[in-house]
Amino acid sequence: MQLEAGCTLTFDMQAPVPMVLMLRPRSGAGQWVVRESYDLTPHVPVTEYTDGFGNLCQRLVTPVGTFRVEVVVTVDAPDVLDSDPQAAYVPVEQLPEDVLHFLLPSRYAPSDQLGDLALEIVQQAESGYGQVEAIRAWIHQNVAYEYGVSNASTSALDTAQQRRGVCRDFSHLGIALCRSLNIPARMVVGYLHELKPMDLHAWFEAFVGGRWYTFDATQPTLRGNRITIAYGRDAADVALTTQFGPGTLDLMHVWVQASEPVPA
Amino acid sequence: MQLEAGCTLTFDMQAPVPMVLMLRPRSGAGQWVVRESYDLTPHVPVTEYTDGFGNLCQRLVTPVGTFRVEVVVTVDAPDVLDSDPQAAYVPVEQLPEDVLHFLLPSRYAPSDQLGDLALEIVQQAESGYGQVEAIRAWIHQNVAYEYGVSNASTSALDTAQQRRGVCRDFSHLGIALCRSLNIPARMVVGYLHELKPMDLHAWFEAFVGGRWYTFDATQPTLRGNRITIAYGRDAADVALTTQFGPGTLDLMHVWVQASEPVPA
Amino acid sequence: MQLEAGCTLTFDMQAPVPMVLMLRPRSGAGQWVVRESYDLTPHVPVTEYTDGFGNLCQRLVTPVGTFRVEVVVTVDAPDVLDSDPQAAYVPVEQLPEDVLHFLLPSRYAPSDQLGDLALEIVQQAESGYGQVEAIRAWIHQNVAYEYGVSNASTSALDTAQQRRGVCRDFSHLGIALCRSLNIPARMVVGYLHELKPMDLHAWFEAFVGGRWYTFDATQPTLRGNRITIAYGRDAADVALTTQFGPGTLDLMHVWVQASEPVPA
Amino acid sequence: MQLEAGCTLTFDMQAPVPMVLMLRPRSGAGQWVVRESYDLTPHVPVTEYTDGFGNLCQRLVTPVGTFRVEVVVTVDAPDVLDSDPQAAYVPVEQLPEDVLHFLLPSRYAPSDQLGDLALEIVQQAESGYGQVEAIRAWIHQNVAYEYGVSNASTSALDTAQQRRGVCRDFSHLGIALCRSLNIPARMVVGYLHELKPMDLHAWFEAFVGGRWYTFDATQPTLRGNRITIAYGRDAADVALTTQFGPGTLDLMHVWVQASEPVPA
Repeated sequence: MQLEAGCTLTFDMQAPVPMVLMLRPRSGAGQWVVRESYDLTPHVPVTEYTDGFGNLCQRLVTPVGTFRVEVVVTVDAPDVLDSDPQAAYVPVEQLPEDVLHFLLPSRYAPSDQLGDLALEIVQQAESGYGQVEAIRAWIHQNVAYEYGVSNASTSALDTAQQRRGVCRDFSHLGIALCRSLNIPARMVVGYLHELKPMDLHAWFEAFVGGRWYTFDATQPTLRGNRITIAYGRDAADVALTTQFGPGTLDLMHVWVQASEPVPA
Repeated sequence: MQLEAGCTLTFDMQAPVPMVLMLRPRSGAGQWVVRESYDLTPHVPVTEYTDGFGNLCQRLVTPVGTFRVEVVVTVDAPDVLDSDPQAAYVPVEQLPEDVLHFLLPSRYAPSDQLGDLALEIVQQAESGYGQVEAIRAWIHQNVAYEYGVSNASTSALDTAQQRRGVCRDFSHLGIALCRSLNIPARMVVGYLHELKPMDLHAWFEAFVGGRWYTFDATQPTLRGNRITIAYGRDAADVALTTQFGPGTLDLMHVWVQASEPVPA
Repeated sequence: MQLEAGCTLTFDMQAPVPMVLMLRPRSGAGQWVVRESYDLTPHVPVTEYTDGFGNLCQRLVTPVGTFRVEVVVTVDAPDVLDSDPQAAYVPVEQLPEDVLHFLLPSRYAPSDQLGDLALEIVQQAESGYGQVEAIRAWIHQNVAYEYGVSNASTSALDTAQQRRGVCRDFSHLGIALCRSLNIPARMVVGYLHELKPMDLHAWFEAFVGGRWYTFDATQPTLRGNRITIAYGRDAADVALTTQFGPGTLDLMHVWVQASEPVPA
Repeated sequence: MQLEAGCTLTFDMQAPVPMVLMLRPRSGAGQWVVRESYDLTPHVPVTEYTDGFGNLCQRLVTPVGTFRVEVVVTVDAPDVLDSDPQAAYVPVEQLPEDVLHFLLPSRYAPSDQLGDLALEIVQQAESGYGQVEAIRAWIHQNVAYEYGVSNASTSALDTAQQRRGVCRDFSHLGIALCRSLNIPARMVVGYLHELKPMDLHAWFEAFVGGRWYTFDATQPTLRGNRITIAYGRDAADVALTTQFGPGTLDLMHVWVQASEPVPA
């Protein structure tokens, strides 16, 4: 489906503050950015660089007062995502080099402390995709989607204990459980069509059968029509905005809708 | 100035042919991409990657028949470019690592064969920016802008002898002469507002005074309102389209115009 | 001084286990590897790659039984390290791109939770190097060097509360306090001549005055004669060995001694 | 076989000259550096960086007078190299991204001008490995190994016409012919055991069947016991020494010998 998605952030800044934004989806293997606009109001000087995960990052110093950032994209994204219950576990020694660091514990995914739970969850599952899907299903069934119970310090270990959280927590738990089984897993933030309530979203990918597959523990079944904005090991790598000083995000508006492709 | 620029390529393909396009300007230190559209008609699957110079490259296999590629961008670009006659020569041992390979001879810039000419041109010039500007002015005065006298094999050595060529040849000569003096130089392809006749354009940058400065030997004076599409050592690195099989580019249309920013 | 340093690890493996080692110092800005040997006994196939921080990583699958790894290096390293009490704080907007991620909280350096302590420590300090030195001195005076009180889960927040730990903990606390003031800081692991008791060591670097400076909170004053093995955001990035399966490190022997350069 | 190889360069420098050396083999997929020494006499400050091809480069400013560089390595390298006559041609659209630039013409490998010759040579060959082997065998049979007939400007096109040259020319011709058939090819410089006369050597690799294979047109049959020092598109990328100013290489001594591994 061709999707139009957008995000408007309105800040109230008391002083000029350095800020890094990560709001520009990239064309790549799974999506094609057909159209994009990126507006800063008032306009301030801004530069862009690529971080270590390939994400495009925009650097600026905010103005004082109201500062509005609006990014709108039109993206070709698949309706149906690949899944393959037969995709096999890849032994660590056969993993590509650039995948290895997605095996290690990270701030919100302390996989070294979740091995027992993971083994319990996957005991009936087939190795590889089957294990990841068992983890995803277990989270979906055992963790309640609930706002206000987690915060910027909540790790997968906390969520495993509380069994409540939001999409970010669901992802961290999925990632940590996969890694504890030596299955590489990474965090994805982006848009999901018809997400309710609409917001920016987080899910995860696991590397089995020689490639990355998408998993989303917040949903009963695998849904397509996603737009990836950024990849990372966990939420610490993919903050959509990072500000180095005080200032308030007054308003955040996110939307995703089907976009009719212009006839050829 | 805010510029709207675009490029339409129409190919006639007898067979599916792998193709790499390099047509997407990036936001960066000198420009900000406010709006962009990238259309393929008919639409074919396409992926994007970043090459070793940071350029965004689009990979696809063409359809059979007419294939149209249209990229339109709105970019904030400076009217006036920085220049600094005092910018000093940077000794090789003080150059940043990622600048060093812009010192070496390359296919179209065989700088190892142009040292004598370079020394002759810069004998009155001040070291650094002054030398590069002397080279640029010399080319502007001594090489005639003329179509049909150079081709895909023409090197800076050929142009130094023939003293005729197009923007690509002017750039290669500037680059080769700079490098023969151990001044790093790189090729830029992109758009220039009010270029006559309108077309995609090529110019060069030289590294003096600790940063890159823009030089364009086809113009009498330094003009701003440029949009960079790609950087490389010479034209071998920055082909806007590379096709790995037969097919004809029937039509190429390029435009650049001032774009009124939407009022805040 | 020219140093000879070495490290012998003896593992007892019950099964073949994938392992990543990070034991090969690189020549670079602050050190030159004159001589090196790297022996695996018994010899097993091994490959090497470079991680995202530039560290050389060796990948292998261990044999079963006793497995011995010995790396010996001879390195030219400065006796006296640069320090500059006048080195100024670099505003975030002026930091190089590749330094920015050393500003963010990481697993063992949750800088977002240590801002109050940092402000208290540096209140009399001059901005920049002075602040980092105040942090280093505060840790040296207020945290007791003590074995057995911290483990692989101990974060800088824990150490700030317990006020006890080892070199790794001292470094994490220094790093987290710096970052909470928007000063980039990174972890270093390596060798230190005349460290007592001799072992592999950890310290940190902070980016002030436009470059990285060395700080070591375990020492009363700044000492040179260090060999860097690896850099990272915190200990999660610089594990000298990572094994993906069971196995015991039976013995680890580390030594550093002055090496007389061979006369020319 | 475990090989000990070394290279001694003795320069006579009239002035301090910036120099980049590329003399340090890296451990990687096909070789393991067990022992290494790298001596500069007299010793001068030197730093190391990694170029865009992954080669380790050493930067320094030479002293005035005699300057001696000696690198000695002990390397585990296979006696027999992989070859696979069945390895298939990889269509361009399926090539990994980082292999694509080895398809393009480069300074010494103007593949765009050698397509006809390539087609003639491979007409009986099986697609993929078979084509590369046909090219290698054709060069071995049709180009005479001869000193003094080529120089730093000689391209594969020159060699195709003259049919004489040295290892560098043989490699360039092999590379250019492969690329003209859309087979990625890259240059390798390094050591070859029992090369006669002993010297540093050059050969090439082609990407077929999903990986790189070694080819050496100077030899009647494929020989192992090689040590790779550097990779590049052609000789322009892999100069073992690059000096940015005057100075003479008085003496160059190269040796390779079997090294008995120390018993465990």
